[in-house]
Amino acid sequence: MAVTAIEQRAMDRALELAARGPRGVNPQVGAVLLSPAGEVLAEGWHRGSGTAHAEVDALSKLPPGAARGATAVVTLEPCNHTGRTGPCAVALIEAGVARVVYALDDPGEVSGGGAERLRAAGVDVESGVRAAEAEALIASWLTAKRLGRPHVTVKWAQSLDGRAAADDGSSRWITGPEARADVHRRRAEADAIVVGTGTVLADDPALTARDGDALHPRQPVPVVIGARATPAHAAVHRHPHAPLFYDTRELPAVLADLHDRGHHSVFVEGGPTLASAFVAAGLADRVLAYVAPVLLGGGRLALTDIGVSRIDEARRLTVEEWVPLGADLLAVARFTDPHAPEQEGAW
Amino acid sequence: MAVTAIEQRAMDRALELAARGPRGVNPQVGAVLLSPAGEVLAEGWHRGSGTAHAEVDALSKLPPGAARGATAVVTLEPCNHTGRTGPCAVALIEAGVARVVYALDDPGEVSGGGAERLRAAGVDVESGVRAAEAEALIASWLTAKRLGRPHVTVKWAQSLDGRAAADDGSSRWITGPEARADVHRRRAEADAIVVGTGTVLADDPALTARDGDALHPRQPVPVVIGARATPAHAAVHRHPHAPLFYDTRELPAVLADLHDRGHHSVFVEGGPTLASAFVAAGLADRVLAYVAPVLLGGGRLALTDIGVSRIDEARRLTVEEWVPLGADLLAVARFTDPHAPEQEGAW
Ligand SMILES: NC(=O)c1ccc[n+]([C@@H]2O[C@H](COP(=O)([O-])OP(=O)(O)OC[C@H]3O[C@@H](n4cnc5c(N)ncnc54)[C@H](OP(=O)(O)O)[C@@H]3O)[C@@H](O)[C@H]2O)c1
Ligand SMILES: NC(=O)c1ccc[n+]([C@@H]2O[C@H](COP(=O)([O-])OP(=O)(O)OC[C@H]3O[C@@H](n4cnc5c(N)ncnc54)[C@H](OP(=O)(O)O)[C@@H]3O)[C@@H](O)[C@H]2O)c1
Repeated sequence: MAVTAIEQRAMDRALELAARGPRGVNPQVGAVLLSPAGEVLAEGWHRGSGTAHAEVDALSKLPPGAARGATAVVTLEPCNHTGRTGPCAVALIEAGVARVVYALDDPGEVSGGGAERLRAAGVDVESGVRAAEAEALIASWLTAKRLGRPHVTVKWAQSLDGRAAADDGSSRWITGPEARADVHRRRAEADAIVVGTGTVLADDPALTARDGDALHPRQPVPVVIGARATPAHAAVHRHPHAPLFYDTRELPAVLADLHDRGHHSVFVEGGPTLASAFVAAGLADRVLAYVAPVLLGGGRLALTDIGVSRIDEARRLTVEEWVPLGADLLAVARFTDPHAPEQEGAW
Repeated sequence: MAVTAIEQRAMDRALELAARGPRGVNPQVGAVLLSPAGEVLAEGWHRGSGTAHAEVDALSKLPPGAARGATAVVTLEPCNHTGRTGPCAVALIEAGVARVVYALDDPGEVSGGGAERLRAAGVDVESGVRAAEAEALIASWLTAKRLGRPHVTVKWAQSLDGRAAADDGSSRWITGPEARADVHRRRAEADAIVVGTGTVLADDPALTARDGDALHPRQPVPVVIGARATPAHAAVHRHPHAPLFYDTRELPAVLADLHDRGHHSVFVEGGPTLASAFVAAGLADRVLAYVAPVLLGGGRLALTDIGVSRIDEARRLTVEEWVPLGADLLAVARFTDPHAPEQEGAW
């Protein structure tokens, strides 16, 4: 049986409901229960780790027996694993739901298999409705799931000749206002903003995403990595979110903890030591290099050592975009797979 | 009296003749002598320092008296100073020339004033005919004249993070084939190609402008600066032009000598020490930075020290063009006048 126009409209609504949930450890999911006649019986969405899944949330709003023969429209395949709540597939079967329409297959190895279980119980199952929209909604969650850690953007500003500052340490402002505004816009899209203790001690940054003097409605959680203590009066303590301090240099451990806290994307903003450590460790998924048309010379390098000693070890980038920002130029790049055959002729 | 179509055609011819002369210490100049009826009596051009000026060259082809009442069409204002030849203005007056049509005023303080002298002798004078074309022809000579030295382009290739090589010194190839071809094209336009002894000893470069394996018809003169000796078997000795060696670090002295030899434009191709020295000395008129989308880290910097210690001393560039070359990007830039008011708001 094909998907009806009513079910498609219900999926649009389920996507709206899903977006109400928080970006976090679990994906954002929405559900709508329809009567056999196509009337909306109940709506539900997932409010984050430890709370009811969307389908169960919707079912909970109905008296026992009221979902018998109903159609459940869900943005993600109902799960098949017993977590804090039981498997959603089983809850739907037990409620007597006759048909399930969902958007996206569950990519989880543990939670997947819900559709199969539903079918085995005689439930009619359709999938792929509004799949692209559902995927876009939880793209950052899917990426983090695939990587097994948050997606990492390493950003730095540099002179054309690769310096982060003049020899005396002064660096305000290498790049112009358009580049700085761009940084703030991109900060606001990240879940966490990460710096080393060196930057905190040298610059006392606020680590907020700002639009002029105003705070963006969405703020990344500020994160400081390194053994040195952050002073009690540091600006980072006045951030809308409580800062996270990691007294370690173990970047994978930091990323694992950020992942466990439900952060899908982190924005590494320096300084040179930390940026280089992320690149050297192969933990940078994307590079944002803001290049100012200025020459500085001297010893304050935007990147220090990244573990390359021979030219054939060079970390090649695929620049997806060169973005002009006032007089500056932003390189948006990812690391080129050294084994990608299309690169061989290019060098 | 206005300039006639015949005179304009004669000027086009004079420009062709001028281009036959060599680029050198003196400007390229051409001349055509027309009878009062508009017939071509004689043609001349300047063959370089120490030889006859174009007007005198043309007059020399006529028997005495044959130029009486003639019109001289010349690409540059006839000179007024007594050099190895007498002033051209006087030669034209003495030959009885009745009218002079020229393209460009002589920018020389010593040689200028020829038009005035001609007029004082009753010769009819018109100027500005095909002035743009005449200027384009001797643009590099005019630039060198204005600077009082050759125009200097400093070129380097770098990784995005400003390195010229990996830590072990290996650097072939940071940039791709399109960027390398562009370098060769631009080399061919320069009069001299300059490197330090460090580059000669490390790379043994040929310092030729090549198109694939073929030599460009026009080759810059190779120049090596520094105290260390170039080995007898070095590739530079096989260059079509005899190399010039300067056992000095006095860049202004080197440029003065190149200027005296008639070189209007030099292409400084490194390495990092020499490039930085030119930038630090304020002797770089244009920068060509070929940026490869690669990260290297480490200590092999494309620019070392350029005399900047505070951020407000940064050497700001105006990037005239960012040229994509395969995966690489070329910045064509000149130094921004720090006092130029339009820059103040931009930073
Ligand atoms: N141009 C730019 O885009 C930009 C951006 C930010 C900062 N900056 C400038 O950078 C300067 C600070 O430089 P920085 O390099 O000292 O700052 P940093 O990279 O922020 O901090 C370095 C510190 O990070 C800690 N760290 C954590 N994990 C590490 C690891 N895996 N490897 C090494 N260190 C690790 C260490 O702290 P402990 O020693 O405490 O353990 C280390 O000393 C300031 O002058 C600032 O203005 C420039
Ligand atoms: N990425 C690129 O575009 C590029 C281009 C060329 C070369 N390279 C690399 O650069 C490396 C060589 O580097 P380098 O810096 O030693 O080479 P360099 O700049 O060619 O040579 C340095 C030498 O230049 C002489 N010199 C002349 N005038 C000077 C001045 N005003 N100040 C200082 N020195 C002056 C000195 O020679 P004396 O000590 O003999 O007096 C000095 O040691 C090689 O590995 C080469 O592969 C890279």
